[in-house]
Amino acid sequence: MTDLEPIPNPNPASIGLVAYRDQHFSEPLLLDCGRALEDWSIRYETYGSLNENRDNAILIEHALSGDHHAAGKYSDADPKPGWWDILIGPGKAFDTNRFFIISSNVIGGCRGSTGPGSINAKTGRPYGMDFPIVTVRDMVRAQERLIRSLGITSLAAVCGGSMGGMLSMEWAIRYPGMVRRVMPIATTTLQSPQAIAFDEVGRNAIMRDPLWNQGDYEPGAGPAHGLAVARMMAHITYLSETGMVQKFGRRLRGKDRLDFTFDIEFEVESYLRHQGQSFIDRFDANTYLYLTKALDYFNLADGAESLDAAFASMQAKALVMAFSSDWLYPPKQNKEAVAAMLRAGKEATYVEIDSDYGHDAFLLEADEISKFIRAFIRD
Amino acid sequence: MTDLEPIPNPNPASIGLVAYRDQHFSEPLLLDCGRALEDWSIRYETYGSLNENRDNAILIEHALSGDHHAAGKYSDADPKPGWWDILIGPGKAFDTNRFFIISSNVIGGCRGSTGPGSINAKTGRPYGMDFPIVTVRDMVRAQERLIRSLGITSLAAVCGGSMGGMLSMEWAIRYPGMVRRVMPIATTTLQSPQAIAFDEVGRNAIMRDPLWNQGDYEPGAGPAHGLAVARMMAHITYLSETGMVQKFGRRLRGKDRLDFTFDIEFEVESYLRHQGQSFIDRFDANTYLYLTKALDYFNLADGAESLDAAFASMQAKALVMAFSSDWLYPPKQNKEAVAAMLRAGKEATYVEIDSDYGHDAFLLEADEISKFIRAFIRD
Repeated sequence: MTDLEPIPNPNPASIGLVAYRDQHFSEPLLLDCGRALEDWSIRYETYGSLNENRDNAILIEHALSGDHHAAGKYSDADPKPGWWDILIGPGKAFDTNRFFIISSNVIGGCRGSTGPGSINAKTGRPYGMDFPIVTVRDMVRAQERLIRSLGITSLAAVCGGSMGGMLSMEWAIRYPGMVRRVMPIATTTLQSPQAIAFDEVGRNAIMRDPLWNQGDYEPGAGPAHGLAVARMMAHITYLSETGMVQKFGRRLRGKDRLDFTFDIEFEVESYLRHQGQSFIDRFDANTYLYLTKALDYFNLADGAESLDAAFASMQAKALVMAFSSDWLYPPKQNKEAVAAMLRAGKEATYVEIDSDYGHDAFLLEADEISKFIRAFIRD
Repeated sequence: MTDLEPIPNPNPASIGLVAYRDQHFSEPLLLDCGRALEDWSIRYETYGSLNENRDNAILIEHALSGDHHAAGKYSDADPKPGWWDILIGPGKAFDTNRFFIISSNVIGGCRGSTGPGSINAKTGRPYGMDFPIVTVRDMVRAQERLIRSLGITSLAAVCGGSMGGMLSMEWAIRYPGMVRRVMPIATTTLQSPQAIAFDEVGRNAIMRDPLWNQGDYEPGAGPAHGLAVARMMAHITYLSETGMVQKFGRRLRGKDRLDFTFDIEFEVESYLRHQGQSFIDRFDANTYLYLTKALDYFNLADGAESLDAAFASMQAKALVMAFSSDWLYPPKQNKEAVAAMLRAGKEATYVEIDSDYGHDAFLLEADEISKFIRAFIRD
């Protein structure tokens, strides 16, 4: 990683229009909880072309509220492209002129892969809380089937931020022969009690909403208020205190003096309410319960003697990136991953990007992230 | 504050049994919002005796979820004494052999002073959301009436943590001739956007609970779920990440392996649910709305050219204490108060106590806090 010349960026452009695919599986998927998914499917997107050797694929892993739609648009009318469009496309860090990018939704999700909102063949109704609990490891088990179904046995890289970073590390450990490089970003090897605590409050907000009804609600209905509160709270943990001072300070919303009411007074209140409201239009409450549970159960060292021992199987080279103001998965927790990899005798390195964007920096600091990704996957 | 000998602690003991008093006022209290409270009252407790000069009184200010019951017990059967019993009593830092301690509830509260749960004489029903919005300054205005009604015109000190620290500083600025020493602890001169954000989520949890019913509910009923969620979330901000790792880690609750259910798995989940549940038994949801609003409006510099200018009127000597792991009102915000006092030419000093208890340290680090309080008020 030394003596780098600037990497030319010939013609960075959006990947253009894209489409998703669903891959169905009828072979049961055994889960950590002891139960199995009988019929299940994964939704995914791909960008670029698989080469003849079938060895230029990079798997992109999304975060809690993300999905498979990482780049491009479904139609020119879409207001925004996929969530990592800044990094994926011709000439971009994940260069689609060179790599075949696969972005896979997770099981348990609500965006097309099998999850609690899917129809349970045995009852003809949505699973709801009858859906089995899935772990990060289960999500990776399911994705391994997907990757093999595409005829791919060696991934050039696996990369993702937040929950996506957990999946990336799990991939490198569980399927070591299939992963040549791993790039976990803004993540942890072990969900901290503080992070569990925030998730537990979010779940309580949902499960104490009477419209949750034990998870039994019609598609599109459900505990909108509880989900909005959960999202508002979680959103605070994605920002940094400094970033909030810069972005909002104590600015009033559309006025120059206080009204002394319980309506919105400050910009930051308006912003959070908007975050809560827009989330309920695109996310399912039961999936929020299941995915936060997967986060909380996450402990990469589970089943191993230690974290160092957990990384013993890893064959991939690792680049771990963290952001200075991230307090959800702070630099310290990312550094611990690298230290354990190094103690296990692996090729691993760490970069800390200075940013006031907090945890959300992995979605925003495109220029900085790009430089390190380009260099790490250049050969 | 130099060359201190160890301060003898002759016989530290609990103050024993105590009782509260209600002071009624029929003269209207004009509020920052432009409205007025017509008939109103403050509940308070006192410990120790007022001296002949009537100049040995110390006013104790409680935090958001605290009240006037700061020391002693109402009956021997009480499981716990008041919230600052560790600091108040014969031979303790606030030595009742020497000082007359006054602990006053705030207006807007739900523990006996006039608040949204009080009966509105005009309607014969609880105010609910017809209660006027009160600010920290309004709370201090009301307390000034109380102190004068006790025949006291000079307070030896005003001291409190968190919201109580805000009240303390407001006292020193608004009634400078009445305050000889001020000891704000774990507080801020200005509610940050992050703190406003957490409060706004808590208010949303309450106001989106159908049982809130626009604030119109029977005493003892109301939005219990929303209030519990608000409290659970707020409680995370009172602890530190390090403290949570020490206190809970990822320990399971009453089992040695995961159950893979949405019931409690981790100790930290159990702890938070307990905090939420016990809070609804002792606190009123509308008061939670009003007091968090008071916190969010708090900006000590409001109406002044600058924070330095706001402190220009202060005559009290100031000791500001903060805790290293407090991220709700972090050391930085406390230091800024002292810096502004110093720039305004005041006698002020700062102490940062090393603690893993986070914001809650002001309720727990009795030994450390005591040393500094004793020294500061010794003459």
